[in-house]
Amino acid sequence: MNAAIITIGDEILIGQIVDTNAAHIARQLNEAGITVSERLSVGDDARQIEESILRAMERCSVVITTGGLGPTKDDITKTTLARMFGCRMVNDPDVEMHIRGLLERRNIPFNELNRSQALVPEGCTVLFNAHGTAPGMWFERDGHILINLPGVPFEMKHLMEDEVLPRLKNRFELRSVVHRTMITAGIPESMLAERIASWEEALPPYLKLAYLPAPNIVRLRLSAYEVDGESVAAEIERRFAMLEEIIPDNIAGFENATLQEHVHRMLTERGQTLAVAESCTGGRIASLFTAMAGASAYLLAGAVTYSNEAKISMLGVSPDTLRRCGAVSEQTAREMAEGVRRITGADYGVATTGIAGPAGGSEEKPVGTVWFAVASAEGTTAVMRNSGTDRGQIIERASAYAIELLRDRILNRK
Amino acid sequence: MNAAIITIGDEILIGQIVDTNAAHIARQLNEAGITVSERLSVGDDARQIEESILRAMERCSVVITTGGLGPTKDDITKTTLARMFGCRMVNDPDVEMHIRGLLERRNIPFNELNRSQALVPEGCTVLFNAHGTAPGMWFERDGHILINLPGVPFEMKHLMEDEVLPRLKNRFELRSVVHRTMITAGIPESMLAERIASWEEALPPYLKLAYLPAPNIVRLRLSAYEVDGESVAAEIERRFAMLEEIIPDNIAGFENATLQEHVHRMLTERGQTLAVAESCTGGRIASLFTAMAGASAYLLAGAVTYSNEAKISMLGVSPDTLRRCGAVSEQTAREMAEGVRRITGADYGVATTGIAGPAGGSEEKPVGTVWFAVASAEGTTAVMRNSGTDRGQIIERASAYAIELLRDRILNRK
Repeated sequence: MNAAIITIGDEILIGQIVDTNAAHIARQLNEAGITVSERLSVGDDARQIEESILRAMERCSVVITTGGLGPTKDDITKTTLARMFGCRMVNDPDVEMHIRGLLERRNIPFNELNRSQALVPEGCTVLFNAHGTAPGMWFERDGHILINLPGVPFEMKHLMEDEVLPRLKNRFELRSVVHRTMITAGIPESMLAERIASWEEALPPYLKLAYLPAPNIVRLRLSAYEVDGESVAAEIERRFAMLEEIIPDNIAGFENATLQEHVHRMLTERGQTLAVAESCTGGRIASLFTAMAGASAYLLAGAVTYSNEAKISMLGVSPDTLRRCGAVSEQTAREMAEGVRRITGADYGVATTGIAGPAGGSEEKPVGTVWFAVASAEGTTAVMRNSGTDRGQIIERASAYAIELLRDRILNRK
Repeated sequence: MNAAIITIGDEILIGQIVDTNAAHIARQLNEAGITVSERLSVGDDARQIEESILRAMERCSVVITTGGLGPTKDDITKTTLARMFGCRMVNDPDVEMHIRGLLERRNIPFNELNRSQALVPEGCTVLFNAHGTAPGMWFERDGHILINLPGVPFEMKHLMEDEVLPRLKNRFELRSVVHRTMITAGIPESMLAERIASWEEALPPYLKLAYLPAPNIVRLRLSAYEVDGESVAAEIERRFAMLEEIIPDNIAGFENATLQEHVHRMLTERGQTLAVAESCTGGRIASLFTAMAGASAYLLAGAVTYSNEAKISMLGVSPDTLRRCGAVSEQTAREMAEGVRRITGADYGVATTGIAGPAGGSEEKPVGTVWFAVASAEGTTAVMRNSGTDRGQIIERASAYAIELLRDRILNRK
């Protein structure tokens, strides 16, 4: 069974926001066994909304839209649908009661605009939005299903989980969509492709291989659509196991797990602890870890020490080192990693110090120069790497590389 | 002049990645005066690629695609284009030389796959990709332009800036697309819409108003497409100035500037300094500031003190406070903010301590409970707020709220 996702809103077309809703819905549909065959975004424009929905409904069994359901005049999805399907707008008393309750709790008066939110096209099934004022809707026409969700990501996610997926699963005998991803590191994409060419040739036709390069890694994804989930998952396992023979030194993990998720799991399993001292990455490394539930078990502390004074007072870096070698230097990185480890008593201390730019570079130490250090009971290693030219890119790459170095240390690799 | 953006890749359709390329290109085109009238995403499938491109070229003057230009078999955009337009694939010696140079510097051998990257459809204009191995392409058919860019965001961005935009600006007399956004705070969307209804009614027809609600704020955007930029920008200023009379207490800023950008500007202009002490936000606040160039001028330090020990050793929080009141308490938040301010000598100390979940909540202090404190020469204020139920959401909301409190303190508001 196939689906289309249409995200509605001028803010998407003009690039004011990044469309995260479509990715979320796509993942959820895939997990339920539904293939997403198209995704598009249109503005808050009746003609565009109508045309894109009708076209998608011709081609797909299920069409899901987000956005345009708010109470203000720029949101026109609901009235456009009513006109398209020739329905009157009618008051839904349950929706009205829910909206009144939500507003009362926040001490907001119920007004004409809220009243319009309780209006829905007659004959549609209302999807109850427990977390917001805009109800979702479900239409059926000639065996095709159209689902309209609000654009607020949080509300959309709850409606997908609580209403849309259970109804779709209940209604259809869905097969499986299977994706498995292997992460390779230390081998560039073109070399990797050459190395595994005969393995790739021999894949069964229902398995689709994708190469997904990213900083420092290439992901290999095998996908199969609308198949028997269990037997295909087993076949994919078998195929990936073959790769462990062909590129044994380049396999860094599986699934979409990020590097920090691997480290998170290793530290948790081993009961080891971590502390980070960040200069140029400015808290990014700490926040990548703390974004994961359970990080408090191993992350003892982080220090964002932008200034020399903070490096001295918070981490015990020697003023003499800073004077002699500078803040961006091997010795400073070492003392930062050792300092944060000593102060917190963590098993691992990780440090970054570099020039994120755009200002602050020199001939000798251009923007992008970053020193990394990892300290543990085995000693301290430090390494320098140029991490690019763009501030955001430098912060991201340097954070990823620091975590990679930590992983290598945990695995006793380097 | 209108444009379509087509992002190509199974990873977008299955939701493995969030499509940030389309938003970036849309913003850039808008800034150049080009209206984006459609955006869609298709898989690595020849029929889909061909159909969507042909359809978009019928409807739009310019079509920009990203993705599918890599060296591996799953990337088929280039060969699909050659077939669509009936061109042979020919070697481009400049591209080959560039690829050889790039690989040599990284000690990677040049292989068959790299050779295929130097092949381009005969007759297209090659857009030189200084930052990667996949060249961009530019086709013209019946006065319509098709531009193909690689999917790696960094490479795409440079190609847009260095090749695509200069060529489009050079080629066409472009008018302006103008967007201006006002940020309102402290008033819910439906009340805001009611309050400014007559102002909205009186807007000239070429100005389109959008309401964009987000946690704690509602953005109001006025947009005009393909107009005289200067006079329209002036008219928008005039319209926004009227709002300063109607909702004087609710205007929090302008443009897409985030709260941290406002604070960044204020601190920079005033020459004041900041230090942050984060427990549940785990480095997120620090990283939001350090993502902005120039943060080193005011951000003296950040401390990520997840554990009680770190709160004591790094910030000087009293063990007695932690024992008596707990880590998530008004007193701990106060001592964290005051501690980080004292240690660093910053003008402002900001602290968060809360329960990001999913574990760790209790009846008295459920997941989402967050205490905030801001310390400055004027004293310390602390406030508690429930920031949601989902870990990611709690971290984001709490970070945003801490920055909001800081802004209020800088402005002497609370």
